[in-house]
Amino acid sequence: MKHISLLGATGSVGTQTLDVIREHPESFKLVAFSSGKNLELTRKIISEFKPSLVSVFEKKDCDTLKAEFPNTKIMFGQEGLVEVAVFDKAEVLVNAVLGSVGLYPTLQAIEARKTIAIANKETLVTAGHLVMEAAKKNNVSILPVDSEHSAIYQCLQGEREKNIDRLIITASGGSFRDLSRDDLKHVTVEDALKHPNWSMGAKITIDSATMMNKGLEVIEAFWLFGLPYDKIDVLLHKESIIHSMVEFHDSSVLAQLGTPDMKVPIQYALTYPDRLPLQSSERLNLAKIGKLHFQDMDLERFRCLHFAIEAGKAGGTLPTVLNAANEVAVSRFLKGEISFLQIEELIESALNNHRSITNPSLAIIQEVDQETRKNASTLL
Amino acid sequence: MKHISLLGATGSVGTQTLDVIREHPESFKLVAFSSGKNLELTRKIISEFKPSLVSVFEKKDCDTLKAEFPNTKIMFGQEGLVEVAVFDKAEVLVNAVLGSVGLYPTLQAIEARKTIAIANKETLVTAGHLVMEAAKKNNVSILPVDSEHSAIYQCLQGEREKNIDRLIITASGGSFRDLSRDDLKHVTVEDALKHPNWSMGAKITIDSATMMNKGLEVIEAFWLFGLPYDKIDVLLHKESIIHSMVEFHDSSVLAQLGTPDMKVPIQYALTYPDRLPLQSSERLNLAKIGKLHFQDMDLERFRCLHFAIEAGKAGGTLPTVLNAANEVAVSRFLKGEISFLQIEELIESALNNHRSITNPSLAIIQEVDQETRKNASTLL
Repeated sequence: MKHISLLGATGSVGTQTLDVIREHPESFKLVAFSSGKNLELTRKIISEFKPSLVSVFEKKDCDTLKAEFPNTKIMFGQEGLVEVAVFDKAEVLVNAVLGSVGLYPTLQAIEARKTIAIANKETLVTAGHLVMEAAKKNNVSILPVDSEHSAIYQCLQGEREKNIDRLIITASGGSFRDLSRDDLKHVTVEDALKHPNWSMGAKITIDSATMMNKGLEVIEAFWLFGLPYDKIDVLLHKESIIHSMVEFHDSSVLAQLGTPDMKVPIQYALTYPDRLPLQSSERLNLAKIGKLHFQDMDLERFRCLHFAIEAGKAGGTLPTVLNAANEVAVSRFLKGEISFLQIEELIESALNNHRSITNPSLAIIQEVDQETRKNASTLL
Repeated sequence: MKHISLLGATGSVGTQTLDVIREHPESFKLVAFSSGKNLELTRKIISEFKPSLVSVFEKKDCDTLKAEFPNTKIMFGQEGLVEVAVFDKAEVLVNAVLGSVGLYPTLQAIEARKTIAIANKETLVTAGHLVMEAAKKNNVSILPVDSEHSAIYQCLQGEREKNIDRLIITASGGSFRDLSRDDLKHVTVEDALKHPNWSMGAKITIDSATMMNKGLEVIEAFWLFGLPYDKIDVLLHKESIIHSMVEFHDSSVLAQLGTPDMKVPIQYALTYPDRLPLQSSERLNLAKIGKLHFQDMDLERFRCLHFAIEAGKAGGTLPTVLNAANEVAVSRFLKGEISFLQIEELIESALNNHRSITNPSLAIIQEVDQETRKNASTLL
């Protein structure tokens, strides 16, 4: 029996993590979770899974739940998030919160020697050096939950690091993969939210359309797998059936495939190095699919990916600026304040205005993050 | 340094094994080999690799070589084959001979505790039960050299047997994949020898066109990986880029990919569980290839595959009959004695005329093999 803490239980990855736990009551138990402002769903999760500890975003929701669930410890805010992350009955922390709010609790969980299943991109993007150093020091595993990184992780089982030549991260191309840059001038929020292959949250769906999602994944892969950027390639593969690949120095390539279903990588992170059946997942039928397509990535067409790779290579606080500017830009696009192509303009402008600080501490990262957000909200 | 014995050095897999050894003089040394009737190439191999022991097919060639290479031990015939297989300076035997002649030397090599890299299909097809039992008893590894089985072997590294749901062996469809059964009535030997993806020997190229090659591979997979026949699927994939796949019970699929190059699986068998660089192998470029195609296998269209699966399921001496009848049929087709579709007729007839013997000894297998060959040469 594995005892699980879950940050971000009501989000897309969070609810699918609950699906996995629900399918294997003999193997997994949810002991603590955090949620945001979705009080209704939070109530249901408490009733169904009966965790010992719950944290919500706001104090008023915390008070409401305390009255309703007198036998459950209810907390709120950053303090609550950290308590969930380091909860002593849990062996594994699934970090499925959105945005850079996941960073501090993750570092605390690593110090508390929890195994980390990480779906929160920003943690590795903005503070990969701190996370991986702490993980190494505390002998803690950082297991990827993203389908791409999980694919690579699966391909690397039984293999030796020295034999890896190249990671090949596949990209669906997002909602706008077939549009020219001219076409992109006029796309709407509604258009952008229609992802062809995956059903995900709004932020990540927009990140897929701008290809920033893939850029963040390249930076994550850099930290997770320790390969230089010139050995991490991105390949357009519109069906999202091959979730990513590893090329070895004997020219052999291993790939992980499947129908688009986040439950598979989530469960793999929870069962690793073993696997459990997953009845609810649709089996891959390649004959039915018929064809898989592949295309080189065009960094002129997808400028956010270019910015991400460059920020990743430069390092320091640039990835923090990239990520914070992107969060603000996407939020402003979703609110209708800026156009789709202005997302990349805003990010470029934020990166150009920043003087990078090398090897930043957590405090500096948080400061740069806040400052970037403040500036980005008035840029353009 | 790994010391290698090689059965069948002048054949397609044999010469590519020599290419691999040549590329890594610091890692591999050829200490013994057998060849058939190609005296010229045998001479060149002796001069280049300076092995201690060589065996040829005929006594007269043996005598010729003895005079030319006084410092090399030269033998011939079945006795020579066995001496090469069990040669005491070798740790690994690469079995790359064609046909059932590879069986007895392989069993002897297993008793002598050599690691077996097996490219000879017939050994496992006709005597899989004896080979795997002997391997288990002697704690010897049987490493596949066929690209399909090597792909599966690579996918299984770091995985647990209990988690495997299905093996998916890919098939190019061979020279005639786009022809109807009506079209097949009139194909020539020349047509059949044009394989679209791989450059191989004549026998295996015909076996690809009839799909018997895939049938033999299904039987081999049954013995190598210990899965029942209903968990071994064949999928048409005309580009031969995905060499085979494994589906696990969480619905995750691992695949091994690459350009068609036998040197990759040959080298993997020699370096396993490690890998070495292979500069001479062309790297996979999926964007350049653009599309991969997949199609269900039609067992009515490819009747040899159907016969093979049925013979495999029935077991006993039926796979021996299947294999021997096929060898004769292909040889007679190559000589122009029978038509392409008569290959399957002849095999079907041989299978129908045979009363299977369960759990056959080596002697019975050899007897059934000889008898089938004799009968098959006059059938039709």
